[in-house]
Amino acid sequence: MNQARKCINSLKAYNPGLIRAKYKLDANESPYDLPVAYKDRILKRMRKIEFNRYPDPYARELREAVAKKNKVGPDNIFFGNGSDEIINYVLQAFCGPGGTVIIPVPTFEMYRIAGVINGNRVIEIPLDKDFDLDDKKIIACADKTRAKFIFIAFPNNPTGNCFSYEKILNIISSVAAFVVVDEAYLEFSGKTFLRHLKRHKNLIIFRTFSKLYSAAIRLGYMIADRKIIDTVNKVRLPYNINSFSQAAALELLKMGRYTAEKADIIVKEREKLYAALKGHYVIQKSDANFLFIKMKQNAGTCRKYFQKNGFSIRIFKSGHSRGWMRLTIGRPEENEAVLKILTRSVE
Amino acid sequence: MNQARKCINSLKAYNPGLIRAKYKLDANESPYDLPVAYKDRILKRMRKIEFNRYPDPYARELREAVAKKNKVGPDNIFFGNGSDEIINYVLQAFCGPGGTVIIPVPTFEMYRIAGVINGNRVIEIPLDKDFDLDDKKIIACADKTRAKFIFIAFPNNPTGNCFSYEKILNIISSVAAFVVVDEAYLEFSGKTFLRHLKRHKNLIIFRTFSKLYSAAIRLGYMIADRKIIDTVNKVRLPYNINSFSQAAALELLKMGRYTAEKADIIVKEREKLYAALKGHYVIQKSDANFLFIKMKQNAGTCRKYFQKNGFSIRIFKSGHSRGWMRLTIGRPEENEAVLKILTRSVE
Repeated sequence: MNQARKCINSLKAYNPGLIRAKYKLDANESPYDLPVAYKDRILKRMRKIEFNRYPDPYARELREAVAKKNKVGPDNIFFGNGSDEIINYVLQAFCGPGGTVIIPVPTFEMYRIAGVINGNRVIEIPLDKDFDLDDKKIIACADKTRAKFIFIAFPNNPTGNCFSYEKILNIISSVAAFVVVDEAYLEFSGKTFLRHLKRHKNLIIFRTFSKLYSAAIRLGYMIADRKIIDTVNKVRLPYNINSFSQAAALELLKMGRYTAEKADIIVKEREKLYAALKGHYVIQKSDANFLFIKMKQNAGTCRKYFQKNGFSIRIFKSGHSRGWMRLTIGRPEENEAVLKILTRSVE
Repeated sequence: MNQARKCINSLKAYNPGLIRAKYKLDANESPYDLPVAYKDRILKRMRKIEFNRYPDPYARELREAVAKKNKVGPDNIFFGNGSDEIINYVLQAFCGPGGTVIIPVPTFEMYRIAGVINGNRVIEIPLDKDFDLDDKKIIACADKTRAKFIFIAFPNNPTGNCFSYEKILNIISSVAAFVVVDEAYLEFSGKTFLRHLKRHKNLIIFRTFSKLYSAAIRLGYMIADRKIIDTVNKVRLPYNINSFSQAAALELLKMGRYTAEKADIIVKEREKLYAALKGHYVIQKSDANFLFIKMKQNAGTCRKYFQKNGFSIRIFKSGHSRGWMRLTIGRPEENEAVLKILTRSVE
């Protein structure tokens, strides 16, 4: 009978976890649901959607709005159902079976998974002891393997830090490969490579609505040279962004003050929690909306303990982040509760 | 510099057309937008969505509802952003680079495009003069090439007819390949292979919300043996169906009487239009919500003429359907207008 491709056999279905916790701090979501008045603005726009018609395949209105926000041309923007879909598309467009993808590790898991699914050769290059990039090794590896892609999360997930800006620039200007700088957590880091796009035609920037605006709508985008966008459009499913996501994103973009306020609170809370924990734990300084903390107990004990107390957090029991946990910054009261747990009971 | 993969070069970005026509009869959409009262039921459910949270990655509530509607288990259901995404996933899961995909032609274009993108070998087997399958040739080809997939649209798009049920059954029971029976237009044909799922583990059925319920929400699904679903879940992007699509589909499923009425009107209109046209044109009897009609003039003239009169229809100027047009059944007044055009002026 028909069997899965060999490269697929090694994969497990990605399991994002289903625990309905009181404190959901496992997925780097914003802890703030949109106020009802804001939701109603979105729903009002959705009411005008012709439900029987396909979405605008080019998401033109949204494209204009996102281009304007980023001061680039509409032709430099490409949308996906979250950046996940865009990772798959860029690999489908440019990286054939056996083509090399380089990723630092630990990093966001979907880069590796998408590479495996697309039959690519995924080479992992460990971060240094400060969780920074080994730029020389990455450049040498890219040269040697004629790599097609290097994926760099900036800030990195799960470690939370932004890698050295200079090292990334060095990589971008030294390699022939595409360098994807994934700025999913931009709103919490304030750092971007956007201004380097014009000079470096191999630079691709990823952004997402998921971490601050809304994870429910599933919208990520890529900013890159027009030629790249044109090629990736050849493999894009024609109606990939549905009418509801397009409508929601357009309204969300108008809520800049609200989202900026929330980002500000989250960043302040992150710093507060970091300061309170650093005397107790080995912990990484963060530029994102989460903290990367070394566990003092084994994964199973730790997981059970958090679950018992109503917390859902990300615990790494295997792989390159083994022995660490990742904690999303929640609302102030959630952060206080988690701090209490972490400084009293688990210790 | 980095170049697109060779197999991608042959592709053009799929251009679904952007003409804002008075009569939009080009995309096989339902001509009936949802009544406002029904939209409001959907929006009411959407208002309860936590906008900051990721969607349910398993779409459990929707899965239960769709399973119940089809009298299968929830584990037999798999959702995609339209069937387009599912075509890509099944190929990624089971059909590696160089693996063979067989399609009758002409048929729905995405089967070939997805095959090319995934580096598969796509073999096209022409329909016979009655637009029916050449089952013997397909079976022989599947044997010889050890094909992984055969895609059969039932009814076929763009020809509109359901292929012979017996020929399809013969194919399903004769080949080792997966046979995808794409029932996108089920609501207009009333014919399904669902009851054969238990006996034939290589049968996969596709369905969609796009053609009758709502094209805007982008939701298709696959019904298949649990082992198939489990494997395809390994390549699925974890949050591929956003919260809004899940909410909308759940409410749409409750509007069975409304949608059945609309399907009934569309089928009656199709028969009326067919009867009125068949004395004037070479035209294919249809089991779907569109008609396949041989043009009397060349493509350019025909297209211009329809555009001038406010119609957007699908005209095939190249490929296996060259010289034919595909006309979506619209509202009665639209069908009367198009009939007038087709029987008076174009003739």
